[in-house]
Amino acid sequence: MRAMVLRGKTLAIETLATPEPGPGQVLARVLACGICGSDLHAAKYLDDMIAAARRSGSTQWDEAVATSGIVMGHEFVAEIVRPGPGAEAWQPGTRVTSIPVLLDPTAPNGLAAIGYSATYPGAYGEYVLMSAPLLLPVPEGLPDEVAATTEPCAVGLHAVREANMQPGQAALVMGAGPIGLMTLLWLRHEGVAPIAVTELSPERRELARQLGADLVIDPRTTPVLEAWQQAVRTPAPPVVFECIGVEGTLQQAMELVDRMGRVIVVGVCMQEDRILPLVAINKQLTLKFVLGYTPAEYAEALEALGKGTIDTSPMISRIIGLDDLPTAFTALADPKDCKIIVAPSR
Amino acid sequence: MRAMVLRGKTLAIETLATPEPGPGQVLARVLACGICGSDLHAAKYLDDMIAAARRSGSTQWDEAVATSGIVMGHEFVAEIVRPGPGAEAWQPGTRVTSIPVLLDPTAPNGLAAIGYSATYPGAYGEYVLMSAPLLLPVPEGLPDEVAATTEPCAVGLHAVREANMQPGQAALVMGAGPIGLMTLLWLRHEGVAPIAVTELSPERRELARQLGADLVIDPRTTPVLEAWQQAVRTPAPPVVFECIGVEGTLQQAMELVDRMGRVIVVGVCMQEDRILPLVAINKQLTLKFVLGYTPAEYAEALEALGKGTIDTSPMISRIIGLDDLPTAFTALADPKDCKIIVAPSR
Repeated sequence: MRAMVLRGKTLAIETLATPEPGPGQVLARVLACGICGSDLHAAKYLDDMIAAARRSGSTQWDEAVATSGIVMGHEFVAEIVRPGPGAEAWQPGTRVTSIPVLLDPTAPNGLAAIGYSATYPGAYGEYVLMSAPLLLPVPEGLPDEVAATTEPCAVGLHAVREANMQPGQAALVMGAGPIGLMTLLWLRHEGVAPIAVTELSPERRELARQLGADLVIDPRTTPVLEAWQQAVRTPAPPVVFECIGVEGTLQQAMELVDRMGRVIVVGVCMQEDRILPLVAINKQLTLKFVLGYTPAEYAEALEALGKGTIDTSPMISRIIGLDDLPTAFTALADPKDCKIIVAPSR
Repeated sequence: MRAMVLRGKTLAIETLATPEPGPGQVLARVLACGICGSDLHAAKYLDDMIAAARRSGSTQWDEAVATSGIVMGHEFVAEIVRPGPGAEAWQPGTRVTSIPVLLDPTAPNGLAAIGYSATYPGAYGEYVLMSAPLLLPVPEGLPDEVAATTEPCAVGLHAVREANMQPGQAALVMGAGPIGLMTLLWLRHEGVAPIAVTELSPERRELARQLGADLVIDPRTTPVLEAWQQAVRTPAPPVVFECIGVEGTLQQAMELVDRMGRVIVVGVCMQEDRILPLVAINKQLTLKFVLGYTPAEYAEALEALGKGTIDTSPMISRIIGLDDLPTAFTALADPKDCKIIVAPSR
């Protein structure tokens, strides 16, 4: 099969052996897979990610990931081609998605991360292996490319749930990339209002407006707190979702949030960052770092997309073939695009 | 009256006018006042404190503090000398303490911080003004120097309450300075067990043992998590109280705490600090920055000291006169001492 392989910092389309489904697994043809910011990070900072994982006491990041090359891709929908032993109940042709995890008794804690494993290829290729017990059928009528947004949609849902927001509370979202916009969609779904969004890119600011932000601010031209105070009539947001994840944005979030407030850190800053603890102390802040989602939240995100109560389709910029994928990684450095979907079998 | 004045970075005993009690105030003779780590910080980093306060949106720190000199001292017990208009119900000779705040309608939010005000002298002098509505009588039989520990004792109580600890939960306290030890005392009081304490100074480690720590670790000679795992039989502490507050200790706390854990930041790091956000993200940590206490917590701390359910007396290293105070500030850089109390009227 054809797939995009990351070796060190190089991305290339290669031909690999099509994997064989083991017990409890299915072989599935990838219909659509979203490009995730984490993959862009990984292509640049793989070593940093492995080092930080080790300092977190994690065994998820295999040393082999750095050396032997990986096929990334973990936001996907696929069509079952061939069930392995014990998975025969799953019919070929069924459209499915799942949390990007493969049950693997030989892996450190029984789980391999689809898209970040040196053993199993992720969904930036024609085929993936999936674990039958984790499969979720994709609701009929839901387009492949929208179903492929289930994973980041679940990230936004998890962030909002972890923030324990109440209807009628106000919030500020920093950054209108895919994760910021998913957070915005779920905040609206939960009745949070008003919602302000800060974003540098004019295209993404327009998307935030389209997806229902009450107040959209370009922090380069408008003092954020002044705009907030004028529109919301409170001194500062009680909850800030930091959905950017570059050096300095955590400190910005600490300065934007109200006293006794909470910063929900959803953005993933890969480098060492600097903060002024005195600001957090004086304001008695809580910083809550969130990651991923529960399997139940993943299923809830898929269901919401199927019912249309959450509509992520405006944030899909374009659908590309596998051959255009390495170039798309470069293009996403310029945030005119939002979510790019690769359809590896087209 | 005689008092120690901080001008820029210089400390000196000077003769100042004895203040006059205004409406609702009393003039009180300082019996005992503890030296607080924040005062040591202020003597070194006053400019940083004012700058950070401004970035926190605070108006508490008057510009004049930097220029006109201040009398610090906010952990005190005093004896009423003369009530001002409307405060006549308070009898001269009554021993009192209060949160270090003076109600002042002319101050930015109606409050002046005793010990950090350019207008009112703090308790590193012979006399202070206190606000009658905030006065708490000191329980009979409680020695002056122990009553003077009410304030840091309330800080420990607040940190423990904000951590929302349950009896039988385990915790790790980083640092056995006065605030770390106060936190330890309240954790024991709340039934938290086991409690581990890390501390570099042998004298303070001994104090932690004496005050009931179950496990005391010198992090320079013993890997903290190995010691924890051996004694507690869990991978890592679910809650870490960071009671050191120097550059790097926040990152250490993030590495010591268990996944999904909480770091309660009680120590006050005055400089910009560096953290690896990926560690907090991977472990899905919550960092809660706490400050001060409520008036009710202050009263509860005083009551516990009066009843003897909390005994802070072992951490009182010595009692000094006003003339020895500037030297004591230098001495506390070497953490053989724990809490030094000044008795300005001796």
